Amino acid sequence: MREHVRALVEHPYFERFVIGLIVFNAMILGMETSAALTTWAGGMLSAIDRIIVGIFVIELALRLIADPRAFIRDPWRWFDTGVVAISVVPATGALSVLRAFRVLRVLRLVANVPAMRRVVTGLLEALPGMGSIVLLLGLIFYVFAVICTKAFGAAFPEWFGTLAASGYTLFQIMTLESWSMGIVRPVMQEFPWAWALFLPFILATAFTVLNLFIGVIVDAMQSEHAAEAAAERESLTTDNGRILAELAEIRALLQKQRAD
Amino acid sequence: MREHVRALVEHPYFERFVIGLIVFNAMILGMETSAALTTWAGGMLSAIDRIIVGIFVIELALRLIADPRAFIRDPWRWFDTGVVAISVVPATGALSVLRAFRVLRVLRLVANVPAMRRVVTGLLEALPGMGSIVLLLGLIFYVFAVICTKAFGAAFPEWFGTLAASGYTLFQIMTLESWSMGIVRPVMQEFPWAWALFLPFILATAFTVLNLFIGVIVDAMQSEHAAEAAAERESLTTDNGRILAELAEIRALLQKQRAD
Amino acid sequence: MREHVRALVEHPYFERFVIGLIVFNAMILGMETSAALTTWAGGMLSAIDRIIVGIFVIELALRLIADPRAFIRDPWRWFDTGVVAISVVPATGALSVLRAFRVLRVLRLVANVPAMRRVVTGLLEALPGMGSIVLLLGLIFYVFAVICTKAFGAAFPEWFGTLAASGYTLFQIMTLESWSMGIVRPVMQEFPWAWALFLPFILATAFTVLNLFIGVIVDAMQSEHAAEAAAERESLTTDNGRILAELAEIRALLQKQRAD
Amino acid sequence: MREHVRALVEHPYFERFVIGLIVFNAMILGMETSAALTTWAGGMLSAIDRIIVGIFVIELALRLIADPRAFIRDPWRWFDTGVVAISVVPATGALSVLRAFRVLRVLRLVANVPAMRRVVTGLLEALPGMGSIVLLLGLIFYVFAVICTKAFGAAFPEWFGTLAASGYTLFQIMTLESWSMGIVRPVMQEFPWAWALFLPFILATAFTVLNLFIGVIVDAMQSEHAAEAAAERESLTTDNGRILAELAEIRALLQKQRAD
Repeated sequence: MREHVRALVEHPYFERFVIGLIVFNAMILGMETSAALTTWAGGMLSAIDRIIVGIFVIELALRLIADPRAFIRDPWRWFDTGVVAISVVPATGALSVLRAFRVLRVLRLVANVPAMRRVVTGLLEALPGMGSIVLLLGLIFYVFAVICTKAFGAAFPEWFGTLAASGYTLFQIMTLESWSMGIVRPVMQEFPWAWALFLPFILATAFTVLNLFIGVIVDAMQSEHAAEAAAERESLTTDNGRILAELAEIRALLQKQRAD
Repeated sequence: MREHVRALVEHPYFERFVIGLIVFNAMILGMETSAALTTWAGGMLSAIDRIIVGIFVIELALRLIADPRAFIRDPWRWFDTGVVAISVVPATGALSVLRAFRVLRVLRLVANVPAMRRVVTGLLEALPGMGSIVLLLGLIFYVFAVICTKAFGAAFPEWFGTLAASGYTLFQIMTLESWSMGIVRPVMQEFPWAWALFLPFILATAFTVLNLFIGVIVDAMQSEHAAEAAAERESLTTDNGRILAELAEIRALLQKQRAD
Repeated sequence: MREHVRALVEHPYFERFVIGLIVFNAMILGMETSAALTTWAGGMLSAIDRIIVGIFVIELALRLIADPRAFIRDPWRWFDTGVVAISVVPATGALSVLRAFRVLRVLRLVANVPAMRRVVTGLLEALPGMGSIVLLLGLIFYVFAVICTKAFGAAFPEWFGTLAASGYTLFQIMTLESWSMGIVRPVMQEFPWAWALFLPFILATAFTVLNLFIGVIVDAMQSEHAAEAAAERESLTTDNGRILAELAEIRALLQKQRAD
Repeated sequence: MREHVRALVEHPYFERFVIGLIVFNAMILGMETSAALTTWAGGMLSAIDRIIVGIFVIELALRLIADPRAFIRDPWRWFDTGVVAISVVPATGALSVLRAFRVLRVLRLVANVPAMRRVVTGLLEALPGMGSIVLLLGLIFYVFAVICTKAFGAAFPEWFGTLAASGYTLFQIMTLESWSMGIVRPVMQEFPWAWALFLPFILATAFTVLNLFIGVIVDAMQSEHAAEAAAERESLTTDNGRILAELAEIRALLQKQRAD
């Protein structure tokens, strides 16, 4: 029986049907945000939604039956399962917040369209190389957050009242959003030397983020370039190999000639 | 007769006359925005404008007669025709909105100056490579727009009332314009956990857009580099070919010597 | 006598003295912005300033005498002369606005410190390559400025009243400063479809500016890379030349052997 | 005895213990920002903090004893010592401001984790290459600050009252934060030609900063590329060397043959 299920699951129409269903589901979820449509056809929309979730559960079960080992090893299938599970769990009481995350089902598109899966995999693979520079950025944030909370926490509780508030405000300053007119100028009214804290912070984070970017760009170009250079090197090496073989043969001829 | 028309159309003075007319037309269209000039010489300005449009119609007709096949195949000619057509259609009633788009005629400059046509072609050619990453960006926008509309739509109808409003607000947040002081801080007054939604959105879109940029940069550099590397490889391959030919000849000489 | 002047002008101490004087002059000009210092020692400051200008005039005259041809050909000397001339012209009446530009004398530092002159020359040399893309950006600005002035000029005279005002506002929107909360949202209150004009503008200018940047980066890297590649190619070509020469000699030997 | 101390200091557990202590200290310093925690356990927190500082003093003393020469030569050890010294100095009276900088101790992590030390060293090494372009940026700032102070100082004392205030405001304008709606539009109410000063400033600084970035990127890529190219060149040179050696031997054979 597993053979039949596998044949079904690997059929190109199955793939297309699932992708079509995800897109259709995305539209339904989008329609549910419209107050007019919900009052007019809310019941039908949520009924369709529940049917689609049902089909997704069956689809994932079929995939699991078809090849349990591959299913368990593929992180994209875990993602698929988790995203569908959110919609199956009864979203009542404490779990009612899960209802808002039902739309994450739309992200199944990433897992099921190979081109998008490749893009996301590429993005995620760029992350580990950023490790130590992200850690450094985190350290800069922590140090400045502690200093700001101690220095400005009492006077500006909304912005610097707690470590978390300071972290959020510093993130805003790093993105340069209203950093001066919104935050630093008001703070400087009370603490005129505050610029001596925030300007170094802006320069340090800008410089670190710039280096993060450069690292990623250099990495991407290098791997691109390495493949190209390897191909070129190989063709030259092949040529040189042929020249050396030819020379060896000529030398052998000459030596044989001498021996005669 | 077609021969005469072609000779006329391909004459360098014809090209220059058309470019000059487009620039002159741009000036007229600019003058029409001045209230003082319009009251003083509005009739004359629109008369000149209508005459220029007439010349453009004749010019395009001549180009079509000169070489109908080339005209129909060239997308720039389609653009030219469309942009002139907007000005010919009587802009009354429902179509009066077209009046504002008459200035698009200035863009004929792009179609008729080869240097600018090359720049725009270059820009447009960079687009297809962005396909799947733009799709991913669209998916991120859609998912967050649905979540925001459901979560904040009732409390902040102006920003998150409909899916379209949420999309616009998220675009604003992506450009980092007043994202914190203008949108997220007010939202956090009511939903203190809102940062947990918007910070990942900012990081995800910033990271995706960064990768879009890197992709385009790497692409541009690669094609630049590939041409260069090909030339270099060719010169080396030629050298190696000459060496191998020389060696083959030497071997032939030796073998003939042996045969003697 | 010209010999003596040239010896003086080319003496390293002369160069150092002029640079020192420019820096000292910069400080004096900075001090003149302080109200406290001006009331206390304003007369002395402006006296020192006038003396320094006098020395500059003598310095430039000496340089002109030392080598009139080189002086006239060097655009940096023209810059030097222009900047000093601004300070000599009596800044009264209609020309009193020139007084504010006296500080441009500080920029003489660029003309007289070789390291800085090289940086600025490098920056200026990057400009011509940007030509057609800057023209394209100008065209986009012009078209959108005309459309905005016609569409929103009456309702928002401060932002879009004239072509110049629209251009300034569009520049602000291009830099993303308060584009949404400050400009587009208020405009959308009256013209709900305004986003359909501004979002394409933001995307088009962002894309064009991005391509401008990429062009400059690719250019810089290419010229860097070209020099390197040329050196490498030369070394390989030399090697191949030596191999081919060696082979030619071997063939000659063999042919002589045959002839024997 | 120095041998024992060195053995202790270089033991991997010692390193780990110090790193663990720094992280623990960071948490303690973070907790001290919480008003609730400070009232409940403030005494204990500051006691733990003082104990940790004590351990740090002992640790640095041990390192100094273990290898005084290496200690004095290593700038990271100077940084370590300075940061710990800030916490030991009695922060009373005029020095009470030092209390806020105690959190800098967290930055010891950079000095003691090799991966982070490498990142920061890399960042700092990129700085000298920026020298003359940063100087140019400083010059642009100074010139515009003097002009703005003279021109707008009287009308807008908060933004352009002193040279320092102008410098800060220009820095804000360079980061594009509220440059138009916040600063330039209000200034243009009084001085309608002000845009002719600020737009060139924005373009000049944007262009300079862009070139700064490009310089750093090109530098990073070049050093990356140079290593790669050197390896490739070496392999080709080796090949060519072998070919030439082979040819020399063949020629020797032929000449010997002739001589026979």
